[in-house]
Amino acid sequence: MAQFEAGYFDRENRTFIITNMTPARPLVNYIWSEEFMMSLDHFGCGSSFGKVAYSTRRPLLGGAGSRLIYIKDRESGEYFCANQRYTAKPHDFHQAHIVPGGHTVIGEELGIRVRFSLTAPMKGFAELWKVEVENRTDKNRELSLYAHARLLADYTGHNSYTLADWNNQVGGVLYSHEIYPEPGVTHYEHAHLYFCSSYPVNSYTTDQKYFCGLYRTFAEPVCMEQDRLPNNGTSYSDSNTTAVEQRLTLAPGEQKTIYYVAGMAKTVEEAAQCAKAYLAEGLFEQTMQSRTEKARATEKVFWLNSGNDYMDDMVNTWLKNQVDLGKTWARVYGCGFRDVMQDVAGFGSLDPKVAREKILLCLRHQFPNGNTIRMFEPIMRRDYRDGAAWIPETVSVYLNESGDADFLNVECPYFESEETGTVLDHIRRGMTFLTTVTGEHGLCLWGAGDWNDSTNAAGLRGKGESVWLSIAAVKALKTFAKLLTDVGMTDEAQKWLREAELMTEKVNKYGWDEDHYIHGYNDDMKKVGAYTSEGAKFYLNMQSWAVLADIKQGQEGHKLMDRVEEELRCSYGYVQCAPSYTKGDPTIGRTTYFVPGCVENGAVYNHGVTFKIAADCHLGRGDLAYSTIRSIMADNPELYGCGVEPYAMTNMYIGPENPYCAKYAPCSWITGTAGWMYRCITEYLMGVQADWTGLKIVPCIPQELDGTKISRIYRGATYNITIHKGQHPMVVDGQEVSCNIAPIFPAGTTHTVEVWC
Amino acid sequence: MAQFEAGYFDRENRTFIITNMTPARPLVNYIWSEEFMMSLDHFGCGSSFGKVAYSTRRPLLGGAGSRLIYIKDRESGEYFCANQRYTAKPHDFHQAHIVPGGHTVIGEELGIRVRFSLTAPMKGFAELWKVEVENRTDKNRELSLYAHARLLADYTGHNSYTLADWNNQVGGVLYSHEIYPEPGVTHYEHAHLYFCSSYPVNSYTTDQKYFCGLYRTFAEPVCMEQDRLPNNGTSYSDSNTTAVEQRLTLAPGEQKTIYYVAGMAKTVEEAAQCAKAYLAEGLFEQTMQSRTEKARATEKVFWLNSGNDYMDDMVNTWLKNQVDLGKTWARVYGCGFRDVMQDVAGFGSLDPKVAREKILLCLRHQFPNGNTIRMFEPIMRRDYRDGAAWIPETVSVYLNESGDADFLNVECPYFESEETGTVLDHIRRGMTFLTTVTGEHGLCLWGAGDWNDSTNAAGLRGKGESVWLSIAAVKALKTFAKLLTDVGMTDEAQKWLREAELMTEKVNKYGWDEDHYIHGYNDDMKKVGAYTSEGAKFYLNMQSWAVLADIKQGQEGHKLMDRVEEELRCSYGYVQCAPSYTKGDPTIGRTTYFVPGCVENGAVYNHGVTFKIAADCHLGRGDLAYSTIRSIMADNPELYGCGVEPYAMTNMYIGPENPYCAKYAPCSWITGTAGWMYRCITEYLMGVQADWTGLKIVPCIPQELDGTKISRIYRGATYNITIHKGQHPMVVDGQEVSCNIAPIFPAGTTHTVEVWC
Repeated sequence: MAQFEAGYFDRENRTFIITNMTPARPLVNYIWSEEFMMSLDHFGCGSSFGKVAYSTRRPLLGGAGSRLIYIKDRESGEYFCANQRYTAKPHDFHQAHIVPGGHTVIGEELGIRVRFSLTAPMKGFAELWKVEVENRTDKNRELSLYAHARLLADYTGHNSYTLADWNNQVGGVLYSHEIYPEPGVTHYEHAHLYFCSSYPVNSYTTDQKYFCGLYRTFAEPVCMEQDRLPNNGTSYSDSNTTAVEQRLTLAPGEQKTIYYVAGMAKTVEEAAQCAKAYLAEGLFEQTMQSRTEKARATEKVFWLNSGNDYMDDMVNTWLKNQVDLGKTWARVYGCGFRDVMQDVAGFGSLDPKVAREKILLCLRHQFPNGNTIRMFEPIMRRDYRDGAAWIPETVSVYLNESGDADFLNVECPYFESEETGTVLDHIRRGMTFLTTVTGEHGLCLWGAGDWNDSTNAAGLRGKGESVWLSIAAVKALKTFAKLLTDVGMTDEAQKWLREAELMTEKVNKYGWDEDHYIHGYNDDMKKVGAYTSEGAKFYLNMQSWAVLADIKQGQEGHKLMDRVEEELRCSYGYVQCAPSYTKGDPTIGRTTYFVPGCVENGAVYNHGVTFKIAADCHLGRGDLAYSTIRSIMADNPELYGCGVEPYAMTNMYIGPENPYCAKYAPCSWITGTAGWMYRCITEYLMGVQADWTGLKIVPCIPQELDGTKISRIYRGATYNITIHKGQHPMVVDGQEVSCNIAPIFPAGTTHTVEVWC
Repeated sequence: MAQFEAGYFDRENRTFIITNMTPARPLVNYIWSEEFMMSLDHFGCGSSFGKVAYSTRRPLLGGAGSRLIYIKDRESGEYFCANQRYTAKPHDFHQAHIVPGGHTVIGEELGIRVRFSLTAPMKGFAELWKVEVENRTDKNRELSLYAHARLLADYTGHNSYTLADWNNQVGGVLYSHEIYPEPGVTHYEHAHLYFCSSYPVNSYTTDQKYFCGLYRTFAEPVCMEQDRLPNNGTSYSDSNTTAVEQRLTLAPGEQKTIYYVAGMAKTVEEAAQCAKAYLAEGLFEQTMQSRTEKARATEKVFWLNSGNDYMDDMVNTWLKNQVDLGKTWARVYGCGFRDVMQDVAGFGSLDPKVAREKILLCLRHQFPNGNTIRMFEPIMRRDYRDGAAWIPETVSVYLNESGDADFLNVECPYFESEETGTVLDHIRRGMTFLTTVTGEHGLCLWGAGDWNDSTNAAGLRGKGESVWLSIAAVKALKTFAKLLTDVGMTDEAQKWLREAELMTEKVNKYGWDEDHYIHGYNDDMKKVGAYTSEGAKFYLNMQSWAVLADIKQGQEGHKLMDRVEEELRCSYGYVQCAPSYTKGDPTIGRTTYFVPGCVENGAVYNHGVTFKIAADCHLGRGDLAYSTIRSIMADNPELYGCGVEPYAMTNMYIGPENPYCAKYAPCSWITGTAGWMYRCITEYLMGVQADWTGLKIVPCIPQELDGTKISRIYRGATYNITIHKGQHPMVVDGQEVSCNIAPIFPAGTTHTVEVWC
């Protein structure tokens, strides 16, 4: 079984159980709906906010001690914080249970076990808490339960607007911050935050002074020395908080369950209505139930049983969950055009309906000239150039999964323009942009960045050219041509293929350095990523993409990727470039200022590693692809203690050139790695690819995965697939088929597929 | 002796000794030079920053646990934090000593006393620490001293730029955050922060993980369980800190002194040079010495001995210190035009040279049309209209103090204009703006606010008129006329006096409601501050200023101010308006959205109270003036525990209409109250006013201050003044003078003045 510093998987219950509550870094969990987001550490603390309008996120909860549950024994005066740990002394029992869409922290001391569970409703701006308190001793216990929620009412920092107190209409604590909406000052219509419980409140406070105390820490809150909270409201406080105290008597073995809701509303009346609705009996359990059902339904679309339990779990449950975050919230802090398009490509097979919506959402952020903005929600206009290159792939994924050819004719506006165009027109303009907005070598202009955001100065003056983007353009053009061919537009397909050839010639003529492709030319026409370059001389992505774009095929491809093995491999993946820059270069951009081994400057940047895995598979190098997958997954023993959540992919491991924290995984979840890793395993390693005419199955597995079984729902039919090592034509429902494409079957039918590789 | 919750004054040493280390709110202290600022709580924690360029403030230190000193007994393993208090258990001894420009926290446990002193050099971007460790037991002690400084290197939040480690060249910990200077991203040239000590460092870390620990609080840092810090640097850390451990052996009674410096530099070389210079032997003591000498010299300019010790101390030492902050850093977060001009008026008598510079600095922020911007450093352009009204007063203060008539002819540019004008021209344009940019009643337009910043919607549409500003204009015009008369420009003086008369007529005609002046008319021509108004019906400032501007004189003035007593008085001062607004009014502005009793919405807003004190004196109501002074000073027993630092004025006490925190003083220091309070006591109550022809002395003291003695340095000569109650012409050096103006004497001479009132 895979070994993790943090804990272990309960496979059957799709739960990761955190047993080490003091891991290398706090473990992140996200719970989200389309309009609400909770970003939690493993203690259940962290921030939450609602998307109250386009690009408008109203904070609800966060800050130090954001969510705390304390138990005090009223007889002895002893107390403990059930979810957080602030002291050297460990709890008698302390775990966190992570499930998709849910989070439970279990803490026990003094013979009282508390289960603190969190989720969010699928609609609305609220978080739901469930607290189960169990008396595990053999005597009656008189307890005070303290629930502490740090509502972020005072978003302007102007305390004079803040008014907080118990509100009878709401039946709980109400925080109001109604401001005069000055120009230039953030203003939320949701001025009222509330915190209510299903169980009678004995006492409350809205001032941190009376809960934690001004001169204490949460290890030793001042309120624990009092009989109850002081029942006071606040205004003009810079130590706002919300805490309620409730009294429970528990017989031996008895358990009580108490619910809470924290939410936001435009009016006091709305707050009262919401609080009531969210505390309705059974709502918490119904919410978890419907979240689980949704997740299980998604699991069934692609169910992998390869014998590598951890990889199977990641594919079946966890990567799907992570990609759902990506396609809904992108990077949480904002929606990158590229990021959402890739996550949608990852999610397209799982929920084509949502993929369709998200593609249209993205395309609204494409300029009439075919280029796209860098990010929306909030809008970021920096002149990145790669947006268009991601469109054909994602649209193809959707079309192949759904068969919905009409989608190409759907009208969609351009960004900040009165023009609209069909989806097809959007792709065409994107391809025109990539093939015509070129520099003196005929390569795509680099602008303020390509995939590599951090080469943000290489093309600022309008001269620099990106070889990577030119290669990506070739791939995009070929993908587009395939799509056009599929829907019968072969003439136009030919036109774009000729563009791909022209670009390929330029890439090979100007983008090549001895034995590898360079990153590009900066505005001074200096090569970036060549042997003559200062700093990084060899980059990963250009090589992988040259293979994926069929610019280097067969032995040439192998030779190129062999150089990648020699130059970039380390014990936990492949670095983005080598060597790392050690000196800032203002003609390339911030990547060169990063400390060696960080992010694009020599980290094992996993998004790039997934491109490499796909390229390995594309070349038929299944062993290498699989060993690369394993190298960056959290069960690689080299990565023990690196900080990554075993239930999520990280965007990077700090590279081996970093003198301080090589291998460390500082971030997680919000990365394009998840979608690509999912596709690498399902579409490349397992080779199960939706195609226009049927389900293509071209596996590339290593010997040790011989006998892998897959269940895949495609256009409503179920394909039960077994992959064998060896040479044999594919067999569908007992019939040999020649082209490794299983036909499209009526929805609801089930079929068996045997496939060899 | 005055009773304070926080502690007591050591009068001789100009020290406030905080004995209650857990007061109602953390007590603030500032230490500053022209280019560096430390904002401290009474534990010595808080932020610091350097003004590295115009309007550019580079943070140096701050955040949780910003400055901590721990002592560990190496034999027993016991430890304590000497300056901060995070636990329920009090120190065996714990005090903070506040002096102008310095701060010392004393903490004792385990028989070890630590004195942790802070100051800043008069030049440069650094803070100086002095730590004295004393063994108060009768045995040898083996100690580890931990100094923890939270350097704010990572100002971009982009961890990839951060590199921190011991640096031999610097001889301490060096934090570098050299970034690619992207457009729109904050970029400081001072990329390097350093922390160095005069005493050998045994071990260090730059990662909070290894000092406090990820899952601990500062009450129980994880490092205390180790023999030493791990000697590690960091990159890509989101838990940056700086901590060094040093070893001391102390014999019984022995004391050791160790110095530290935290600073910022553009290069590593500069950091090394600065660290060396700031750790030079004796520098800390020399800095404190020169700060003390400067403060004592300022004390001598006006030395009050009234018998009210607390008031005397405030005038002699503390208000001067506070006004120095105001004239240097204004409100710290920014320099309001109005705020700096008033603080300079307060400080003008104490340092006319600096007053001159500051006036010119302010006038650069006046538009060619005569109006001024609201704030500089950073620039805030909101269309406030009162800037010009403050110019004549402040220039007069400077001229009367210095006799420097040439100042009026100094050329000074206008804001964002190629035009320049003399100081006189600046005043003229200001007066022209006030008298010509008027509304339909002929009153000054209200724009986005007058003195009352929070009436920020009353005149947004260009129609609303401010009665207060119109009254202030009358006062400014008369002050200007006096100034012109003094320098012999009597014809022009007459012209402006006619303008004052015209404006007075309009104020009386349109600004009056039954028995008081209204605040103004909003854009809908609705009266604000009239009996017919919703919300506040009676404001303070219009009444006080009508008296100060001689619009209401004699019995009319008394009658008006009697109404103030009836409407606005409470047990700790006078509220800004009554009743408070309880409902937001978007045609007036944010003041109406404030919770009742907060800021301009019904607080005891002390700046306004000082205007009232001046008005009382102007009417000869010394008893009322003095009782008002006493009502808002921190020794008013009604205000015991209100939170205010006894060594600084607060801008407000929350008003009695607030349901939660009436009397509370949430802020302090950064308020125009200090300068005005100083002038109220020295120039109004004591009546010692620099005039063009000599030192005017027109006291207005109550009986209980009979016999007050004052020493005043004016144009270089010292006037030893005694104020008596009674009727008698003033006597200067034994000679009766008729007009209460003591003549200008040669610098260096000393004179006695007896004056009666």
